Amino acid sequence: MAETTGTQASWATTPAATEHLSAQELDGLDMWWRAANYLSVGQIYLMGNPLLREPLRPEHVKPRLLGHWGTTPGLNFVYAHLNRAIRTRDLDMMYVIGPGHGGPGLIAAAWLEGTYSEVYPDVAQDHDGLVRLVTQFSFPGGVPSHVAPETPGSIHEGGELGYSLAHAFGAALDNPELVVACVVGDGEAETGPLAAGWQSNKFLDPATDGAVLPILHLNGYKIASPTVWARIPEEELLSTLRGFGYEPFVVAGSDPGSMHHLFAATLDRCLDGIAAVQRRARRDGIQRRPRWPMIVLRTPKGWTGPATVDGKRVEGTWRSHQIPLSDPRRNPEHLAQLESWLLSYEPAELFDHDGAPVPPIREHSPVGIRRMSANPHANGGRLLRALRMPDFRDYAVPVARPGAETAEATRVLGGFLRDVVRRNRQNFRVFAPDENNSNRLDAVLEATTRAWVAETEPGDESLAPDGRVMEILSEHTCQGWLEGYLLTGRHGFFSCYEAFAHIVDSMVNQHAKWLKVSNQLPWRAPIASLNYLLTSHVWRQDHNGFSHQDPGFIDHVVNKKAEIVRVYLPPDANTLLSVADHCLRSRDYINVVVAGKQPEPQYLDMDAAIVHCTKGIGIWDWASSDQSGDPDVVMACAGDVPTMETLAAVDHLRHDFPDLRMRVVNVVDLMRLQEEREHPHGLSDTAFDSLFTRDRPVIFAFHGYPWLIHRLTYRRHNHANIHVRGYKEEGTTTTPFDMCVLNEIDRFHLAIDVIDRVPRLGPRAAYAREALKSKLIEHRQYVSAHGEDMPEIQEWTWPGRLGS
Amino acid sequence: MAETTGTQASWATTPAATEHLSAQELDGLDMWWRAANYLSVGQIYLMGNPLLREPLRPEHVKPRLLGHWGTTPGLNFVYAHLNRAIRTRDLDMMYVIGPGHGGPGLIAAAWLEGTYSEVYPDVAQDHDGLVRLVTQFSFPGGVPSHVAPETPGSIHEGGELGYSLAHAFGAALDNPELVVACVVGDGEAETGPLAAGWQSNKFLDPATDGAVLPILHLNGYKIASPTVWARIPEEELLSTLRGFGYEPFVVAGSDPGSMHHLFAATLDRCLDGIAAVQRRARRDGIQRRPRWPMIVLRTPKGWTGPATVDGKRVEGTWRSHQIPLSDPRRNPEHLAQLESWLLSYEPAELFDHDGAPVPPIREHSPVGIRRMSANPHANGGRLLRALRMPDFRDYAVPVARPGAETAEATRVLGGFLRDVVRRNRQNFRVFAPDENNSNRLDAVLEATTRAWVAETEPGDESLAPDGRVMEILSEHTCQGWLEGYLLTGRHGFFSCYEAFAHIVDSMVNQHAKWLKVSNQLPWRAPIASLNYLLTSHVWRQDHNGFSHQDPGFIDHVVNKKAEIVRVYLPPDANTLLSVADHCLRSRDYINVVVAGKQPEPQYLDMDAAIVHCTKGIGIWDWASSDQSGDPDVVMACAGDVPTMETLAAVDHLRHDFPDLRMRVVNVVDLMRLQEEREHPHGLSDTAFDSLFTRDRPVIFAFHGYPWLIHRLTYRRHNHANIHVRGYKEEGTTTTPFDMCVLNEIDRFHLAIDVIDRVPRLGPRAAYAREALKSKLIEHRQYVSAHGEDMPEIQEWTWPGRLGS
Repeated sequence: MAETTGTQASWATTPAATEHLSAQELDGLDMWWRAANYLSVGQIYLMGNPLLREPLRPEHVKPRLLGHWGTTPGLNFVYAHLNRAIRTRDLDMMYVIGPGHGGPGLIAAAWLEGTYSEVYPDVAQDHDGLVRLVTQFSFPGGVPSHVAPETPGSIHEGGELGYSLAHAFGAALDNPELVVACVVGDGEAETGPLAAGWQSNKFLDPATDGAVLPILHLNGYKIASPTVWARIPEEELLSTLRGFGYEPFVVAGSDPGSMHHLFAATLDRCLDGIAAVQRRARRDGIQRRPRWPMIVLRTPKGWTGPATVDGKRVEGTWRSHQIPLSDPRRNPEHLAQLESWLLSYEPAELFDHDGAPVPPIREHSPVGIRRMSANPHANGGRLLRALRMPDFRDYAVPVARPGAETAEATRVLGGFLRDVVRRNRQNFRVFAPDENNSNRLDAVLEATTRAWVAETEPGDESLAPDGRVMEILSEHTCQGWLEGYLLTGRHGFFSCYEAFAHIVDSMVNQHAKWLKVSNQLPWRAPIASLNYLLTSHVWRQDHNGFSHQDPGFIDHVVNKKAEIVRVYLPPDANTLLSVADHCLRSRDYINVVVAGKQPEPQYLDMDAAIVHCTKGIGIWDWASSDQSGDPDVVMACAGDVPTMETLAAVDHLRHDFPDLRMRVVNVVDLMRLQEEREHPHGLSDTAFDSLFTRDRPVIFAFHGYPWLIHRLTYRRHNHANIHVRGYKEEGTTTTPFDMCVLNEIDRFHLAIDVIDRVPRLGPRAAYAREALKSKLIEHRQYVSAHGEDMPEIQEWTWPGRLGS
Repeated sequence: MAETTGTQASWATTPAATEHLSAQELDGLDMWWRAANYLSVGQIYLMGNPLLREPLRPEHVKPRLLGHWGTTPGLNFVYAHLNRAIRTRDLDMMYVIGPGHGGPGLIAAAWLEGTYSEVYPDVAQDHDGLVRLVTQFSFPGGVPSHVAPETPGSIHEGGELGYSLAHAFGAALDNPELVVACVVGDGEAETGPLAAGWQSNKFLDPATDGAVLPILHLNGYKIASPTVWARIPEEELLSTLRGFGYEPFVVAGSDPGSMHHLFAATLDRCLDGIAAVQRRARRDGIQRRPRWPMIVLRTPKGWTGPATVDGKRVEGTWRSHQIPLSDPRRNPEHLAQLESWLLSYEPAELFDHDGAPVPPIREHSPVGIRRMSANPHANGGRLLRALRMPDFRDYAVPVARPGAETAEATRVLGGFLRDVVRRNRQNFRVFAPDENNSNRLDAVLEATTRAWVAETEPGDESLAPDGRVMEILSEHTCQGWLEGYLLTGRHGFFSCYEAFAHIVDSMVNQHAKWLKVSNQLPWRAPIASLNYLLTSHVWRQDHNGFSHQDPGFIDHVVNKKAEIVRVYLPPDANTLLSVADHCLRSRDYINVVVAGKQPEPQYLDMDAAIVHCTKGIGIWDWASSDQSGDPDVVMACAGDVPTMETLAAVDHLRHDFPDLRMRVVNVVDLMRLQEEREHPHGLSDTAFDSLFTRDRPVIFAFHGYPWLIHRLTYRRHNHANIHVRGYKEEGTTTTPFDMCVLNEIDRFHLAIDVIDRVPRLGPRAAYAREALKSKLIEHRQYVSAHGEDMPEIQEWTWPGRLGS
């Protein structure tokens, strides 16, 4: 693989690549690259003798070798070239790398640029700093082997693969001067999320957004086998990328000298192309979607590393994926090979007496915030501006008395979000997998459109390049865009069918981990929270049926660190407004808000809603009948539908048992249920007991899987008396109320639960119980005959008998 | 959109499309299509008067209209054409449709073919049957509006989008005579999993596998906006598909007559192409990857439906996605429009006096198992053959006494799986996202190769078209292939990094739902279980760091129905063998097995392992010191690393407190912890108490998040005394033992937990506690200095002091 070829796929006049760089440019570039490679190998292997100023001995080598060499030299190569371009063009550029296990490369780059020593003064640009730099890597108490929050200049965790393109496009949105260079690994390119991410160019406005320069890096191998993208004819490769709407330029080879000229020429061509696209769009408006340039870089895996080890080919194969020389500490041949590998970069030329990079290397790095490792977009909290917020109280649904009005909570929220969009036209977007309108947030489209740079046809509505509603039928892409947008210091709101939020479970994991670690790094500034609205939820997916019914995203999220996670279940429109306002102002959380879109009774006027949401949990006196403060039973509820069913059950019971003392407790902030020491929102035991008593039965109607309530409350005094109803995987295509009946969370089952658990109801109990059972039978019969719920169910509202 | 165009993208000589069908063929085809469309509209709207033999009145219309019209006529069109091809070519063909919300179409087809009435005799091919057919659709007590297990001929739930291609390819594997026609919706095509699925053609052996015929159906709109794939130039569209390695043929238009000729001609061409590819490969061997044909079908959304409603365009727009006429029950104009829409299909021509399809329609359907609705592959359990199993005991690691040997559990399993592969060369495959070898199952490659039809290069190892190891770096694709393979009656095994199993959370949901519903349908035969091996697990991801650490897949899975879900945590190699054997023989479950790949002490010889796994939970007498049967403390453990740490803690404590009565309980089958009434594997309270006592402290070291144990045991008598250690999101790049220390599940913390909870230890307790704390400090210091665990940790094995 010694040759070098350049396919200028379409722009015709290429200067002879061999002349593209001056000797001096070439020199600085190559030295920078060699230094980055040298330090990468050093980080993987060494814990001493970082400049090889003495012969390499076993004790200089780490006992456990943990890191990935294979992808790293290619990443360093690109980094070195981007630096040249940044300097010559004064570019505002970020670097997102999909193959983030190439962590040593990005750490080396940040150190060469001086950023690392600014952020971590102990890792100075001197010999001691170098000892620390190499030793800390993948070492207990040190830094991870992958790109991580600890890596300056990064917004993209290097563990799970597939999200680089979506992150890059998210970063570019509303940053018209920014160019995001995004390396896509050929392993990563096999993943679904990455494959979907290519289509992001249909949503990027060349006038008001920045640019993404994808660099598909074909080094040919995954952990143990070739990659698909490297083993298809180049014709197919280019055909695919052109089909995706890009103009691909191929740079392939292994000879560093000619590769430098060729890549530099190609990069210049691409950056000229980007500038031309943007100039045209910003001057003439957007006539049609531009073809953005991109690069295909084909280099050997483990480039410049050992060609063969133990008689087997390593460079250019999957054997260089992690540690090419497996045991230099015990195997003298490996040790010698490691030494000559390191010396092949000629470290004596690269570092001065003190261990600092020599001037040609220092001069090759950009300066200040132009350094990609110090670009403020990659530490987005530094750029974060608070949203200009409308007053959410202005959108309140008037509620003269509980239950008197009906509203669609998310539709009300839509009006509020519309005005958030209006006031924040450069740093707020809403994201949805084709569900914005289905989730009844359509008022947002009064203030903006959907982002759309693909073709339009007569009759199309609400599509424009600068639209602020990001809709693609890919939860992964939406989530990736939003993460990229947030991590670069902006704000967003993701609405999603509840069941399908699970599609991004694993992405949420990674974002939660990122936030947890970032919070521990003083130099990382707080960013806006990741806000989910889960709607079209389990209790109102009667029409789409079983496949659309799953409330388990909450369960997934609460496994994450308590300081990161918030879960809200506002029971009506005004509480939803209050919660949404709070979430949009918050920082560094993952906020999950669950709320329905269907017409439902409203309970709290805005003042009451604010009080209730501020407490997060509270007794609804107006619905309770335990004026004495000594209830026979606590009726707890969390979620809009469970709240309605609980109130309807109370209504029934009030009629049957006028002297039954019921206390209604509504939960908005789910984490209030957990103990103080487990979650910052957790109630003290005293506060919990004052709501739930220490010994009375609690009938808890919960939006999600019932076990979650037990999980959150198992240490509470009254836990043994808490009886939870929730979703238990019973569902199908039926009526809304029947969904509740199937899962036994409906008003009749809840009322029966009370009767079964309050002993003092006496002989009336048996009679009332039978009446409730008859109601259930009547319901089933009615629904089977008519296909809709009984009028008394459809029309139920809180009767207000108990005052308010 | 009245014109019709056919782009025969490359195969040159096309017969004039207008002549392709005889008049009689065209007639039968069009009648079949009209009948399917008529019945589809009928299902969405009607609950009476199904043949329109009297004027349509409001009470004939359902009160709640739930269904999707938009995609349905296109699906019916394709179905009608496939039927012609099946008949003329005697094809073994299945139909997988991505836009599965077009459920009414597939139900209509199954009814027209007679299958529906065979499976559901109440829905006969007569007037009464028709009343039932239309009424039951999306009606309480009826059938879902999407394609579901209830739909004969389907293996693909129509709720969540993105998995059709992977399912189709999974079905085609090892079925050389099968052709799977797979409709990909243009909404679905935006998802990541679907985008990744196109690459499946690099893994399909034209000699030993069947074929997939993708039909990309561009009807232009999602719920509320245009689709990306319909709004790019055709040049880009074809370029992408050719880049993916297909030969696309475009059929576009809206005039039924010419569309019939054109689609029929194109379909014949594609089926000829498939036959030619297979013939060549089977005769001459595989020289290079074939270009499989595929179809791009561009038709109006809601084709043949109302052109305009309430003055707005409906046909050909997103407004026809669900219910084009929103309120025929109350809006007389809608009612009239519905009636004329239905009559436009000329039902009087299509159904005989009794309501059965007229002979030309019946004759257009294939016969017997050639009907796609009755194809046995789509009810895979009917074709399922048990695996020919090697005796797992033959692979046992000899364990003379507990802790004496060390083994890598998954490597041992690899030998067993190798021989399962050897004995089952047509109906067993292993699946992994590029992790088969990393997970140490490489022995499998002694019996087979990786499946690979892309290019090869000198030096490649273990790649061949007929390999039985399916590796692509896409968890989604692996999962989709495996589901398709299982649902068509075969067996499989999926190994995955534990943390990244979350990537398929949502797919697991859908498969679990499918199994739950299938189990309730007597005509659906049981299929092989979906078997996961989660390895490279949280406690041994010290080298990859925090991003690779997440044990929450278990939490996700246990939310599914108890009758579907099994979770096993074998502590060593022999128990893993026993569990794996059990899982491979089981049916209709989702089995999650968690086991490590690193060298670890072995505890049970094969006889003991079998006994232990059969019980699923048990006291390890050889490790316990409560010979009296009256322990001071119960040391419970589940998972390989927690088991080792528990035994090491017991070892320590035994030394410090020779008279401390400890009982070691090991859990292999996690669901044993749950109550009998919650899970079929649940222990009775008596049995639980006999293991865990009613009043002694239980120190429980658990592989995953600690709350899961509380969730499973909160109703047990001794729950308040159960103290669980598990993963609490503390992790980074460090040493294996340090991972345990960070999460306080290590031997020293566990021993301290015992000391803190057993009051009778007296004054020695404080001293022992301090010594343990010193150990922890010593550990931290050692690790920071040396980068590896202390020798005493690395070398610990169970000392066997307590006999065995």
